[in-house]
Amino acid sequence: MLLPDFERVKLARLQSRIKPHLERTEAALDRLTASDIALADEIGRHIRNGRGKFFRPTLLLLSAMEEGQVPDLAVEAAAAVELVHTATLVHDDFIDDAETRRGQPAVNKKYGPATALIMGDLLYTRALQHLARLDLVTPYRLMTDAAVHMSEAEMLQAQTRYSLEVDEETYLRIIYQKTASLIECACRIGASFLPDAGDIDAVFRQFGCQTGLVFQITDDIFDYLGDPRRLGKPTGCDWSEGRITLPLIVAWREADAGARAQISALAASRDPAERAGSWSEVQAFVQRYGGVDYAYERAKAHGEKAKAALGALATGSRQDLLTVAVEYVINRLK
Amino acid sequence: MLLPDFERVKLARLQSRIKPHLERTEAALDRLTASDIALADEIGRHIRNGRGKFFRPTLLLLSAMEEGQVPDLAVEAAAAVELVHTATLVHDDFIDDAETRRGQPAVNKKYGPATALIMGDLLYTRALQHLARLDLVTPYRLMTDAAVHMSEAEMLQAQTRYSLEVDEETYLRIIYQKTASLIECACRIGASFLPDAGDIDAVFRQFGCQTGLVFQITDDIFDYLGDPRRLGKPTGCDWSEGRITLPLIVAWREADAGARAQISALAASRDPAERAGSWSEVQAFVQRYGGVDYAYERAKAHGEKAKAALGALATGSRQDLLTVAVEYVINRLK
Repeated sequence: MLLPDFERVKLARLQSRIKPHLERTEAALDRLTASDIALADEIGRHIRNGRGKFFRPTLLLLSAMEEGQVPDLAVEAAAAVELVHTATLVHDDFIDDAETRRGQPAVNKKYGPATALIMGDLLYTRALQHLARLDLVTPYRLMTDAAVHMSEAEMLQAQTRYSLEVDEETYLRIIYQKTASLIECACRIGASFLPDAGDIDAVFRQFGCQTGLVFQITDDIFDYLGDPRRLGKPTGCDWSEGRITLPLIVAWREADAGARAQISALAASRDPAERAGSWSEVQAFVQRYGGVDYAYERAKAHGEKAKAALGALATGSRQDLLTVAVEYVINRLK
Repeated sequence: MLLPDFERVKLARLQSRIKPHLERTEAALDRLTASDIALADEIGRHIRNGRGKFFRPTLLLLSAMEEGQVPDLAVEAAAAVELVHTATLVHDDFIDDAETRRGQPAVNKKYGPATALIMGDLLYTRALQHLARLDLVTPYRLMTDAAVHMSEAEMLQAQTRYSLEVDEETYLRIIYQKTASLIECACRIGASFLPDAGDIDAVFRQFGCQTGLVFQITDDIFDYLGDPRRLGKPTGCDWSEGRITLPLIVAWREADAGARAQISALAASRDPAERAGSWSEVQAFVQRYGGVDYAYERAKAHGEKAKAALGALATGSRQDLLTVAVEYVINRLK
């Protein structure tokens, strides 16, 4: 039985409020992924076929919007943010040896790992070039900071892979750098176009950071519980591939020595198929020691912080719409 | 018998003229490749152990130097250029499945392909972030243009791999984008620190572009002839890996149908070992139809253009030293 996807509906309704600006962003993205090199152009079209949710551009546009209007340069910046996001997905899929992305073959599978690396580099550098050419100094600075954060997160993740000794602090650093930093960057870039940009940057920084943390913790919980809106989506991918996330980190912290020893034995394997075989035992362990409940509470707390940050904004449609945006992220868990 | 490496000596002598500035650049590079993430820091040290020739920073520093002085920001930009160059080498080695780099194991071999991809991304983004944080607007604009060029070149190279129908024009685009664009970028960034930067940008652009073209054509010739200063260095790597470069492009253009058919049969294989087996036949074909001689003439012509560009500069030490730099590149062939 497929549950109706109320949250997707909520996001779609939110996005309908900025439809013309999202369409402009898509057009800009089309221009940025087109190429006079046939192979790059083909892969660009392949990627655009699997359209994402445009969550980051949505936040950027909502942050930049004044009386229903979004400046052209903010639209161009929104396209650049989505392009950087796309580039990281292409590289991530290569790192994770992923088979599919958004319902189609991943670039690394369809075109090979070397071409996936090149394509990711091309999208990444083109996004940064776009901001540089448009003289968007603040967006460029914010984006290169986020880009370094994301690369560092991948490195940290590679370094801590398979280790049950990752602590909550390291986990928080990884998810801030790999996910929240770009969402924060999108919000701050959007707000940089507002007349009082200097005064309210800290608000958007806090809002974006906290929203991004909710987003990633939620994704990590889905990998233990299953996503209620996508029944049949497999769980346990993080465990199989050796990514140790908050639910397991907490359960490990809380467990007694005997239970730890059992999990430790299972964690010694680096073979994805073998690890998949021990998944139900790990899932039970995490439930027993309250790992998912704890992660859920942390996600809610970050969501409250995100909403609280918006309290500093003037009441009005921007505050309202961004509240809906963060509620969409929080409610994905319900 | 090992020939004395006169050209390396010439480069070393040139570099001794800017020794303190090169040392500052190395120190800046050390800071940029250090990391609080143990794995990134370790790979950073591994990479720095295999020190390169610092050819691009040398050109940047020579271009920026006034009365023996180089501004701090130009030194930082020189480190960023070398860092981008290093990032592309890490990614290239993965693409080419290279075993070694500068006498030590390539990052993709020592740490695995996924980590090589991440490390390349980290170095790349950190270089671009560094320029942004220092508010070096013109340098980061030039650098993102070069970065896009280099990624496009990799894509073009992937697209034309193994094809004997690549023409000279496409070859020129590839080598401009993959090699000359960053050398041009280094020269233009250096000159951007000069008081009359706006007026002389075109000179450094032409000088850098032409010098870069000589550099790559020379490398491509070495792959047919062997590098006289590195006896024993294997030839035929480009052929084995399916990269069709100027000597072969020209020989193919000049050859009769019978000779073409023979080469065409050999080119059908995509197995590096099998291609290596046909190398001597290809080498003979290229010699017979004048491919190396033609490439040599083209390299010399680009070298002359580089020197001619310098004629527009005021006579003095900058002009003299840059002339030595391009002569170093041209004379590598002698």
